Amino acid sequence: MKQVAILGSTGSIGCNTLRVIESFKGEFGVAALGAGSNIELLAEQIDRHRPRLVSVSDEDCALQLQSRLRERSILPLPAIGTGVDGLSEVAICSGVEIVIGAVVGARGLLPTYRALEMGRRVALANKETLVIAGELMTQAASKSGAEILPVDSEHNALHQCLRGVERHELKRLILTASGGPFRTASEEEIAHATPALALNHPTWRMGAKITIDSATLMNKGLEVIEAHWLFDYSVDQIDIVVHPQSVVHSMIELVDGSIIAQLGLTDMRHAIQYALTFPARLPSFLPKLDLTSHGKLEFYALEHGKFPCVGLAYKALRAGGTMPAVLNAANEVAVSMFLQEKIKFGSIPELISGACDAHTPQPVKNLDLVLAADQWARNWVMEKVQQQETRELTN
Amino acid sequence: MKQVAILGSTGSIGCNTLRVIESFKGEFGVAALGAGSNIELLAEQIDRHRPRLVSVSDEDCALQLQSRLRERSILPLPAIGTGVDGLSEVAICSGVEIVIGAVVGARGLLPTYRALEMGRRVALANKETLVIAGELMTQAASKSGAEILPVDSEHNALHQCLRGVERHELKRLILTASGGPFRTASEEEIAHATPALALNHPTWRMGAKITIDSATLMNKGLEVIEAHWLFDYSVDQIDIVVHPQSVVHSMIELVDGSIIAQLGLTDMRHAIQYALTFPARLPSFLPKLDLTSHGKLEFYALEHGKFPCVGLAYKALRAGGTMPAVLNAANEVAVSMFLQEKIKFGSIPELISGACDAHTPQPVKNLDLVLAADQWARNWVMEKVQQQETRELTN
Repeated sequence: MKQVAILGSTGSIGCNTLRVIESFKGEFGVAALGAGSNIELLAEQIDRHRPRLVSVSDEDCALQLQSRLRERSILPLPAIGTGVDGLSEVAICSGVEIVIGAVVGARGLLPTYRALEMGRRVALANKETLVIAGELMTQAASKSGAEILPVDSEHNALHQCLRGVERHELKRLILTASGGPFRTASEEEIAHATPALALNHPTWRMGAKITIDSATLMNKGLEVIEAHWLFDYSVDQIDIVVHPQSVVHSMIELVDGSIIAQLGLTDMRHAIQYALTFPARLPSFLPKLDLTSHGKLEFYALEHGKFPCVGLAYKALRAGGTMPAVLNAANEVAVSMFLQEKIKFGSIPELISGACDAHTPQPVKNLDLVLAADQWARNWVMEKVQQQETRELTN
Repeated sequence: MKQVAILGSTGSIGCNTLRVIESFKGEFGVAALGAGSNIELLAEQIDRHRPRLVSVSDEDCALQLQSRLRERSILPLPAIGTGVDGLSEVAICSGVEIVIGAVVGARGLLPTYRALEMGRRVALANKETLVIAGELMTQAASKSGAEILPVDSEHNALHQCLRGVERHELKRLILTASGGPFRTASEEEIAHATPALALNHPTWRMGAKITIDSATLMNKGLEVIEAHWLFDYSVDQIDIVVHPQSVVHSMIELVDGSIIAQLGLTDMRHAIQYALTFPARLPSFLPKLDLTSHGKLEFYALEHGKFPCVGLAYKALRAGGTMPAVLNAANEVAVSMFLQEKIKFGSIPELISGACDAHTPQPVKNLDLVLAADQWARNWVMEKVQQQETRELTN
């Protein structure tokens, strides 16, 4: 029975991971769960899966959890850690073979790094990890022999397509992009889009931040950076094609002109199962894709002029070092400002571009350096927006 | 330099194979060429590629060839064989690693069998080989360790998709079918279709016989039988999906619900190159697929009622033994009768069904037994058509 630790167990990926594990009785055990402050749900997960170790945000949450577990008469109580240290303990919990990296944001960086240092397989759902610290993470993995298995549908598809392919046989990776809610909108319409419009994603249901990233297509830009680190291909070998139906999850083109694609339903449990069972494939009880029920599959070239965030991501990856961390942090703050209706949709790429232009990339020597660049970019964007607000008030 | 022998060098597959070989200077040598009676073209091929051994239909052709080669001052002259014996010598020519099996019809059976017995890789373009003698061919291959590499786009796609897949991980093979010229026609229209209409294939340009097979969808039925022998999966694991654009060449579904597809242009040189260079993939100078230039890819369920030939092929494969040979021979004669306007399009499946019903399948112990069943079916269909003609004249 393979032991699994989940960083971010009460989030969407975490819950789905537990559902997949439950569907394979006897294959996987849950050794450790790292959560935040959703104590009610964590207590329920502990009751079902009986991990030895859990982690929550802080001491308050720990006390709350203890009383919930006593109410449920759970014995023995799991060890309870807190904060990033607790999360790191979950990541390196003894006997664990697979760590699910599904904590949102920079909080997941250190625990994921620790797991990779220990040679654990990391099933990675946290986008930031590779975008802002890809070099450090992949160095740690290659040193310890750890595998990073992507849990998002695009990179998981690429991982599947690349099985058995020799490095020199690959021409390019082709990430598919749904095109988001503004695929057919004009540049003018996009520039003045409201949060409500931007949150209306055509194929996937996701959180607000990532849905806005799907509207700017920054999600695809970040995926280009992730793909670079995951599969070690140069930025020039990573392309994007717009595919509104999201049925083809991604493709590879080989040097002989052959294209290999992976297709499936838009259900993240497929990718989670793949990452858990790799290199084996186990029968799944999830609904299956019926291609004949889809009217058609369409493919369009990406319109870079309408979606400048994509070009910014390519540029940041080319600049290297701390630049992708700045891109990511600037984007995060800009999206948050947009959702608060403090800036226009069209200002998101402007702010990111401004932050990147103002930044001189440094080599990524350690996590602190990356996090410093991240913080610098956040401050830069916030100040910029405040300056604008002040100007508007003064005018 | 890998030595290649081509059975059927002056046909479409043969000529394209030579073009692919020419595009890889120094990778492949042409040791032997087997042709029929296109002496002019064969002489030209000999001039360019200087094989040690060639084969033509008969003594007349051999004499003709000798004089053509003398006119071209080709020295030393290659050894020249004739008939099936000559073709078999080409297939087992010493030093040859790869044999291209591209002779049309049953004439290719014995030479292909000989090549497989010798442990040669056979790049197979001849459909009949596996349809009527799949058991014998695959037994010979597994005894000698020979590989059979499919050169048609569908099976070649399956071969690519199956790389690195464990047997128990496969749920089903999914052959794509363009649907032919009658995809959207009614059953009534199909029953009374003329040769001119049936020869109007939407995506591929091919010979008359195979184009009619694409109109009845018998080509897809025959491909199901081929896929069974090539990949050793049961008839219940082989499905067909209609895909009018012929961009997805075929797919596999894995037990975890993932679908892997191979896509490419409809140019047979891709599959030929794959079969020549396998397991390596070499850069190709052929045009590449640009998905964004295709409006859309569509997928439909196969309408078995409109295309009864497909069901007949599944039934013949289930019956086993000599039954697929009878199906294939009955189809060949029926198609020929249709092209001669002796029977209606709708009579093709009727005649095949009649022949199969009248046949008791025998275990396939040797090639003679298969060829006897083949001959029996040809006679049965011809007699049936003659009886009908006589009846029509009498009435």
